[in-house]
Formats: sequence, structure tokens, C-alpha cells
Amino acid sequence: MKLATLHIRGKTVACVQTESDFAVVRDGDVSSLMEQPEWRSQAAKAAESSSRRLTHAEAVFAPLVTTDRKIICCGLNYADHISEMGRELPEHPTLFAKFADTLCGANDRIEVRASEKVDWEAELAVMVGSHLHEADEAEASAAIAGYAVANDVSMRDWQNRTTQWLQGKAFDATTPVGPVLVTADEFGEEPIFDVYCYVNDEQVQHGDTSRLVFPPAKLLAYVSTFTQLRPGDLILTGTPGGVGAGAKPPRFLADGDFLRTEIPGVGSLRNQVRVEGMTSEESCAPDLERRQLTHP
Amino acid sequence: MKLATLHIRGKTVACVQTESDFAVVRDGDVSSLMEQPEWRSQAAKAAESSSRRLTHAEAVFAPLVTTDRKIICCGLNYADHISEMGRELPEHPTLFAKFADTLCGANDRIEVRASEKVDWEAELAVMVGSHLHEADEAEASAAIAGYAVANDVSMRDWQNRTTQWLQGKAFDATTPVGPVLVTADEFGEEPIFDVYCYVNDEQVQHGDTSRLVFPPAKLLAYVSTFTQLRPGDLILTGTPGGVGAGAKPPRFLADGDFLRTEIPGVGSLRNQVRVEGMTSEESCAPDLERRQLTHP
Repeated sequence: MKLATLHIRGKTVACVQTESDFAVVRDGDVSSLMEQPEWRSQAAKAAESSSRRLTHAEAVFAPLVTTDRKIICCGLNYADHISEMGRELPEHPTLFAKFADTLCGANDRIEVRASEKVDWEAELAVMVGSHLHEADEAEASAAIAGYAVANDVSMRDWQNRTTQWLQGKAFDATTPVGPVLVTADEFGEEPIFDVYCYVNDEQVQHGDTSRLVFPPAKLLAYVSTFTQLRPGDLILTGTPGGVGAGAKPPRFLADGDFLRTEIPGVGSLRNQVRVEGMTSEESCAPDLERRQLTHP
Repeated sequence: MKLATLHIRGKTVACVQTESDFAVVRDGDVSSLMEQPEWRSQAAKAAESSSRRLTHAEAVFAPLVTTDRKIICCGLNYADHISEMGRELPEHPTLFAKFADTLCGANDRIEVRASEKVDWEAELAVMVGSHLHEADEAEASAAIAGYAVANDVSMRDWQNRTTQWLQGKAFDATTPVGPVLVTADEFGEEPIFDVYCYVNDEQVQHGDTSRLVFPPAKLLAYVSTFTQLRPGDLILTGTPGGVGAGAKPPRFLADGDFLRTEIPGVGSLRNQVRVEGMTSEESCAPDLERRQLTHP
């Protein structure tokens, strides 16, 4: 089952994707749908008989989560990304938060002001499907509602202004999450995903989730030891090697760049990046020149 | 005007404090009351004529904020605390997030499991009263709805497990915020507050907000450059010198300790701390022994 939050007439609705269209399950977002214990049957019923439907062409994706709830991100979780950032394998997950305002839709333009170091971080996102409090890994695994694609776009200059990353990770509407939540029952137990990131069709990241130091269930169980997780909460599981800050020399996103984030079997995000201060004409210059414009 | 979130029959209500009692303004919490543009007149009217009222004796304080919204904390903001932690004066505020679940009521017991380094951080809390986006300091100052007392109780062992503090700052129900929000109109422009923390009636912290590197309006303006702030959002402004981790030798809260956090003119929090693994009998031992029990 594939669930999406779609824009419709100035508000959002939680939908279930069918072969031919999207059927509205209820007002709100996928997160709030998860709060309904009967969300599966509600979605299945809507797929059959909802009177409110959108064609694939009409569908404009909002982020899966549109109202504040726990959005927790794990940094430094892929062995290869950890080594490119010059760090050692951690004993505990490195956790920080995002706000619902931080998220954007799967095809939204990402508009950034006041940063010259806009970087990509392709990630597997996991939505919580049931209440977790001091859970063990088996409970946490059973509580995974489904998987989505995310890109934890990071303003490295802001991220590194202080020891705490939040301000570089919480620019409004800069983290695409979607396009759909693919429910866990579509995969086997402990599925392994390939995570890709492309900048203007150049592959810059590829990792697979077998390299996660803290796989989803372990991460959810760990978080639930200090704060309860509820249906609709979202966990971003970290990014593999290949971020711009880790390149030699470092490279960052330029105005007009196209960012594509893919997890085969889950979905694909396509976001154009607009960096204020650079014109789209400048961004049409060849790669190297564009990067130089980003770093005068 | 003093506003409080009170427990009543399994839910919470936003109340206005009068000389003789608390008058219910609406269901929900003080944060959601702030979303009403007419919250001042609604509260004033309720004070006069609300039919739902609680005596001071009946009042059980819930946190000012009970549902998820932006709760942003500033670390390292008092010049003296920065030097006790061995750091230099920062150019930018150090920011991290909390969840609504992290908060607790002004007199709630603070129950902590799985930490042996539970520390205190008395703080001035500021509630946002109107929408802020890329605001300057004057706009931010005008948007301050009011002030409250908070204690950013921190599990130092968890806080220092990784570079990101979130997990040591986001244990459920460990940050008391309240008891009331005192609206900004009760003070002059840029008021200076004294912030005190007591452990078992021993004063451990005293700072005044003239020592803030980033005073409230500057903090709100800064945050609003990357993420919009909305009515009901909460900012914790940092703690003065005197935290347990900064003591030589370091000292932490023990099971049964009483924590009192005071800002004269704003309010007082009184919270007993329960640390699992220590019995209340042990906690009645003299100070030194208690600390030894905390650090076997």
C-alpha cells in the first residue's frame, strides 16, 4: 500500500495510491492518518470507494508530515559516510530534531536564502505506526508503518556555526519527504534498500542500508528509551557517503541545480534548488563555474 | 495577566489567573490559546465571567505547552555559564529542540530512568505571541507574548554520548515550564530577570538576564531567519552559571532531591526528582553520601 499527502484546494489530504489514481482517505496528512488504529482498512476502503479522487497528473505532493510531531534524524549512521566525515564508528546514534515546517513535498522547489553551502543527504525515512515506549528491537520492528525517501538538505555554513546542528538542518521547507509512504507489509523482514542521490543527473551518493550502524528497528528502540514514539512520528535514518562537504574539494548545490533522491521500490524525489543571490542564468553555466559562483 | 495550563478531569484547559482563582478560557493549553488573535480579550472576559473556575488549591499545573510545536532552546547564553563550561563567547546562538513530551508541570515529580548524571539548568522561557519570519529585533521584541520559568533538566551522560545534545535534553516529562505565563505588558521594555535554582533549598544558580549574550528579542529574530515562529512557540533562553556538571567535583541530582527554580516576578517551579535505582531512603542520606550513591 502506498500513502501520500496531497495538496488540494489550499489544504492537504491523506490519500492511498491506486493503479489509476489517488483516493482521498481523510483530510490532513499521512501522519494524522496513522493515528487512526484502523488506518489500513480505512485506506483499503477508500481505494475501493472514495468519492474524492485525483489523477496521477493532478497529484501535487505535500510532505508526508505537515503538522508538528516528533521528527528525529540520525546523523553519522552509514559506515562510509562516517569515515568521509573523519569520525569513528559510534557507540550511540547521533540524534537531532527537525520541525514539520522543515519538510517539503517530493517535487517542491527548495528555496534557500542566506547560505552558500547547501548540501545533499539522501536518506531512508521510516514512519512509526504504533506507540513505542522503552521498546525492544522486535517491538520496534513491528511498529514500522512504512518507508519513504528523504533528503536532509543541510546548510553546512549554518550547521557548523555552533556545536549543535539544528540551525543548519531546520531551514523551512528544505527537507523533501515522500513522495509516498510504502507500507512495511510490501517488503520482507528487515528489508535492505539502495539509497541514491543525483545532482543534475550525476550520481553523487549510493549506499545500501545494510551499511547502517543503527538500522531502523534499533534506532526506534533506542529513541523509545528516552521519549515515546507515536503513530505518525518520523525517523530519518542518516545518509551514506558522498555528500558535498566530504568531496575534495568540497562542492555544494548551486542555484538551479536539480536534486534527485531515489530508493528503488520506495520512490523518487525531484527538487530544483534555488539559492538566493544566484540567478538561474548563472546556474546554467558548466559545473565547475557554477560551483565557483557558489564559492566566490 | 497570568495564564496557566491546568489539568482538569483527564484533559487540560487554558486558564487566566485572578486574585481569587483560575478562570477557564478554553480547552487546550496556553500555546493553543495564543493562536487566537483575540486571546487577550478572551482571557479578560473569562476572568470576569467564565462559569468554569478552579480555586488556587484545586489548580494542578500542566506544562504551558502540551502539544507539539516549536520548542527551541539556546545553550551557552550566559557569559558566566559559558566560561564555567570552558568555552569562548559565541558569535551565534547554540540551538537545539525539545518536544512537547519533554515538558512537565510546575510541581510535577521528575522521574528519570537510566541516567546517573541528572543536572539542573534554571532558565527564562519566552512564549511567542505573533508570527515571525525574518524579523528584526524590534519586531521580535513586540512579538513576545510573555515569560515563564523553566528548568532544562539535562541527563549529562546521555547529552555527551554524541556531539548532539538532543538525547540528553529530551527525556519525556523532565523539563518543567510554568507555573504561569506572565504577559509581557506586565513588565517594561527589555525587562531584566533574576534566575535562581535551588537544590534542597541550597542556592546553586543565580544569574540575571542582563548577562545574556543573546537576549530574548535577538534570539527570536535570529531563529526567524531560518524558521518561522508562530504564536504559542516556546524559546528557552539558556542557563546561568552554577550547573552541577560545572562544579568541582561535578555533582548531580539524587533520588528524592527537591529542585526549586525561581524568577521573581514570574514564578516558581518546585519539582521532586526521582532517579530510578535509588530508594527514597537512600536519598535522605546527607548530601555527600547521596552524591556518592549517584556516582558509585
